[in-house]
Amino acid sequence: MRATTIHAPYDLRVEDVPDPLVQLPTDAVVRVLRACVCGSDLWAYRGEAERAPGQRIGHEFIGVVEDAGREVSGVRAGDLVVAPFVWSDGVCDYCEEGLTTSCEHGGMWGAVGYDGGQGEAVRVPFADGTLVKLPSEAASDDRLLAALLTLSDVLGTGHHAALGAGARPGATVAVVGDGAVGLCGVLAAKRLGAERIIALGRHTARTDIARDFGATDVVAERGEAAVAAVRELTRGQGAHAVIEAVGTEESMRTAVGMARDGGAIGYVGAPHGSGTGLDLREMFSRNIALRGGIAPVRAYIPELLPDVLDSTIDPSPVFDRSVSLEEVPEGYRAMDRREALKVIVTA
Amino acid sequence: MRATTIHAPYDLRVEDVPDPLVQLPTDAVVRVLRACVCGSDLWAYRGEAERAPGQRIGHEFIGVVEDAGREVSGVRAGDLVVAPFVWSDGVCDYCEEGLTTSCEHGGMWGAVGYDGGQGEAVRVPFADGTLVKLPSEAASDDRLLAALLTLSDVLGTGHHAALGAGARPGATVAVVGDGAVGLCGVLAAKRLGAERIIALGRHTARTDIARDFGATDVVAERGEAAVAAVRELTRGQGAHAVIEAVGTEESMRTAVGMARDGGAIGYVGAPHGSGTGLDLREMFSRNIALRGGIAPVRAYIPELLPDVLDSTIDPSPVFDRSVSLEEVPEGYRAMDRREALKVIVTA
Repeated sequence: MRATTIHAPYDLRVEDVPDPLVQLPTDAVVRVLRACVCGSDLWAYRGEAERAPGQRIGHEFIGVVEDAGREVSGVRAGDLVVAPFVWSDGVCDYCEEGLTTSCEHGGMWGAVGYDGGQGEAVRVPFADGTLVKLPSEAASDDRLLAALLTLSDVLGTGHHAALGAGARPGATVAVVGDGAVGLCGVLAAKRLGAERIIALGRHTARTDIARDFGATDVVAERGEAAVAAVRELTRGQGAHAVIEAVGTEESMRTAVGMARDGGAIGYVGAPHGSGTGLDLREMFSRNIALRGGIAPVRAYIPELLPDVLDSTIDPSPVFDRSVSLEEVPEGYRAMDRREALKVIVTA
Repeated sequence: MRATTIHAPYDLRVEDVPDPLVQLPTDAVVRVLRACVCGSDLWAYRGEAERAPGQRIGHEFIGVVEDAGREVSGVRAGDLVVAPFVWSDGVCDYCEEGLTTSCEHGGMWGAVGYDGGQGEAVRVPFADGTLVKLPSEAASDDRLLAALLTLSDVLGTGHHAALGAGARPGATVAVVGDGAVGLCGVLAAKRLGAERIIALGRHTARTDIARDFGATDVVAERGEAAVAAVRELTRGQGAHAVIEAVGTEESMRTAVGMARDGGAIGYVGAPHGSGTGLDLREMFSRNIALRGGIAPVRAYIPELLPDVLDSTIDPSPVFDRSVSLEEVPEGYRAMDRREALKVIVTA
């Protein structure tokens, strides 16, 4: 089959690789219908995250089950399924508690020896724990497929951030980060009943989506100026809940600065840099909590799926460019240059 | 009147100062019956926290109202009262939400121009918001007075840490710090229903109190060895809830290391040092939350007071030395040398 591989920074290739097969009785093989490129894929692309030459890449996909091991009972050949960005056994202590990212047998697509989502097919370990079945009618609805694909990562990650930040009815939520995750954070905060949602961003294409997703205010400033602007909008107090969806020390500082005393930062931007950006004295004196981390999106799919299926929420606008599998390297280039917000890969 | 003043590191004096008077209609004057020395007083004592020469000190006290301004309605002359370590107006947004430490008009005892608890009497701003009335019979019960005095700070602070850490029925709680706050954290975790409480400490006098307060296990190791010991006790997983009651980078690292994936650190040790001790990458990958800060103990008194009054909990053993007001400097010396856990000051 054809799959995307990474050989060095900026050296992505779509090439022939062995067809995936059921190797363990808990495996399934899924033929990919839609995949996409994640902001975090760019770290590998840019060489900020190390990869072995030839490693697969891509951790978000929807597809159709082609084969399943004899112990797989939850899905079967022909089922339309979505995969979260971490596979998990579904039965360990952590999976039972909903922290699937800490699964004792979990792992990431594209790890050495494993397939990635940006390919024709994927061997899925622990298919019962990992995959979630979708209504087969969705396969013929392009918009709905795109919306459902966000359950792989960005929608669940935005939801995790919103929960961590404490988005709730009556709350003011500020969102640092105008990427697909930040925008999904806006959508998730709105879904959780936030009264006011302040999105940070200066690119109209993105802030327009933020407004469509529920942002009541947009702040174009950055850093200290953004903190001042959010305080200005909140009688000097700051936001009850702050979603941090960037992961730099600067964005964390901004998030803490705009949090209201007693509030929380829900952080899902994977930490970059050697420091934390956290001023612990400020957090201490103002009782600012920090919650979040890598999002256990598998556990959120059952809650979010019905709202996506009935269009209560529609995260599909985060995809603003579509490429074929052979064009994946072009999709990376567009995202790397911020010419595209998020690229969807069609089969 | 006589009051404790600080003139330079290690230069505490008990000297004559002006008698406090009601200055504002919302003030009360309280004659101090019991005060105490806090671990955080030692920062000023050691010169780690700056003080203007002659500043008052002490932020925990119980006393009898001597006079009250004309707008004070909640307490009157003759009432036995306890004061939390921060005064607060009781009516601002933050006070109404229970975050009295962020009160728009709040402040700390011993600030320049204000009395401290380690003196004969104290002018109390915003007496209605700040003071909590106690049953007058308590005044003649030494043990009960000591127990009630912990409502000023250490009991409420331990409770704040336990809440921040997520102590709850069924949870395993680890407590970093064997001072009065850490021990009160044990007591609070027990009160909140924690199933297992692991106290870190190597001084028998302290670990004996920890066991009396509800610790089920004691770990004498420190740092990485303590992390290993707590993991050993928890099938390798770590504690659901970790109370951090020290405030150094090392203790924070220890706290994060022994937290179970998906768990939380409840931190109440005021941050020392320039760094945070937080490894954000580890916290991110394991979804460890950080909650806490300066404890809004005023808001906790109504909840904790009944349990202290009926001896459901008895925090009085944290006091292991008693001094008179004139002997306060001696009390500091004993705590500075760790010869005393916590010193109570009698009138």
